Amino acid sequence: MDAITRIERALAAALSSTEARGAPPRLGEAMRYAVFPRGSRVRPRLALAVAAACGDDIPEMADAGAVAIELLHCASLVHDDLPCFDDAATRRGKPALHRAFGEPLAVLAGDALIVMAFQTIARAALLAPSRAAALMLTVGDSVGMPFGIVAGQAWECEPEVNLAEYQRQKTGSLFAAAAVAGAAAAGAESEPWRLFGERLGEAYQVADDLSDATAEEGESGKTIGQDVAHDRPSAVRSLGIKGAVKRLEELAEGAVAAVPACAGQAALCALIRLEARRLLPEKLSLSAA
Amino acid sequence: MDAITRIERALAAALSSTEARGAPPRLGEAMRYAVFPRGSRVRPRLALAVAAACGDDIPEMADAGAVAIELLHCASLVHDDLPCFDDAATRRGKPALHRAFGEPLAVLAGDALIVMAFQTIARAALLAPSRAAALMLTVGDSVGMPFGIVAGQAWECEPEVNLAEYQRQKTGSLFAAAAVAGAAAAGAESEPWRLFGERLGEAYQVADDLSDATAEEGESGKTIGQDVAHDRPSAVRSLGIKGAVKRLEELAEGAVAAVPACAGQAALCALIRLEARRLLPEKLSLSAA
Repeated sequence: MDAITRIERALAAALSSTEARGAPPRLGEAMRYAVFPRGSRVRPRLALAVAAACGDDIPEMADAGAVAIELLHCASLVHDDLPCFDDAATRRGKPALHRAFGEPLAVLAGDALIVMAFQTIARAALLAPSRAAALMLTVGDSVGMPFGIVAGQAWECEPEVNLAEYQRQKTGSLFAAAAVAGAAAAGAESEPWRLFGERLGEAYQVADDLSDATAEEGESGKTIGQDVAHDRPSAVRSLGIKGAVKRLEELAEGAVAAVPACAGQAALCALIRLEARRLLPEKLSLSAA
Repeated sequence: MDAITRIERALAAALSSTEARGAPPRLGEAMRYAVFPRGSRVRPRLALAVAAACGDDIPEMADAGAVAIELLHCASLVHDDLPCFDDAATRRGKPALHRAFGEPLAVLAGDALIVMAFQTIARAALLAPSRAAALMLTVGDSVGMPFGIVAGQAWECEPEVNLAEYQRQKTGSLFAAAAVAGAAAAGAESEPWRLFGERLGEAYQVADDLSDATAEEGESGKTIGQDVAHDRPSAVRSLGIKGAVKRLEELAEGAVAAVPACAGQAALCALIRLEARRLLPEKLSLSAA
């Protein structure tokens, strides 16, 4: 089974609980709307790729980590799109959740997706409680205070922004967690994977800034031009487009250099280089070729 | 150390992470504002009372369960008070969080408190991973879909409300989880505690409905008259004030009858009866005396 199929099945299994008799139907619909159809699934693919490189001896545990991380990512998109933040009209090529279901269900769907991430790990914990505990801590810290994605988003509410922390927390933390969680789920020593994940996260942030600055409306499936519109820090604003492309390439190579020794090291490095090329907006990778 | 002192210390320890260097300061402030000064702390007191009745052999685990449940309760208050739900002006006798910090930080503080609940259990998991896994599942299910407090709140967004599920999920589930978590933290068989917690939760909901219907503004520390203003189901609206008082008394006795056999059974039953008398708004308990 390829990684995407595996991820979609594991997500569908987790979300199936929202259809239970006695659950509020529209909240369930809203949650499924937030998760399907899929975006890039880059974070859970990263978690599974690291788990595979480390042996993946309890696949259900790797699935739980991958699902938890994707659910948290989807939750953060739903809440970031709310009127009090970006007030985004579209996401993944369709109306943003608060436009489709209203603001109350957007708040609640985000909340319920956050909780579902931890419910999913807790269910897998029966298989290997110690691994699940490590997974939970890694995933929790990557989302919560003091340095997780919620902290990152909160820098948009501070009178003075710590730009390095903003980017590390808002995007880098969940990538780092995906890498660490993949290793932890496979029972490998997991902290050595953090730097690798952090560099990939930075690369992805730069790619996202490039996409926001250069994509045509409709192309990226979400409202573009948001960084300038909201006066947000961006690699393109600080480095220019050429500088940002160069930075993306450096970061991807830095990530490859940071892969710890493991059985699947070569395959993983090849995968990362392929992904890095895909991350570059199409017209930029053509002009750079 | 009495239960309240123990709970306040454990909450302060959990919230201290929000003051870490490199964390967004205003989000940390907002989170502490949501948790301190304290409300009734009835849910964590319930968790610790059950843990004590069951031996409380790993107090750090009971603390983690109690803290997690209170943080989730505080998070739900912050999100329920948002303009898109109650648009409440006051909470615990001071401006509601969104009025004091703005809507973006209210959304994020709620999110971060939800995550902190699970971070807290994950940190305690090092002491006893299997107990922590049970705790995590109980707590997660009491908050998330399909039957937790977020599901309960979502019934307010459904075209047709399932009143029994609404009340069971919105209030009962976290009380049930407090009782079950207290037992699980102490290593006792925990599911027999669910019915006890559910009945206490129902009693508390009836008391809250009575308070909303009969308290003077300022007396309860939050905006009152919300049930009628938002056309919400309420025991007072369906049973009248006298009927609701009678229902509260029946539920408290039902809870006492549901306490499973344990070392601290007599002390726990006495505590519950005392709490039930305290729950009744003062003027009603005087008229009933």
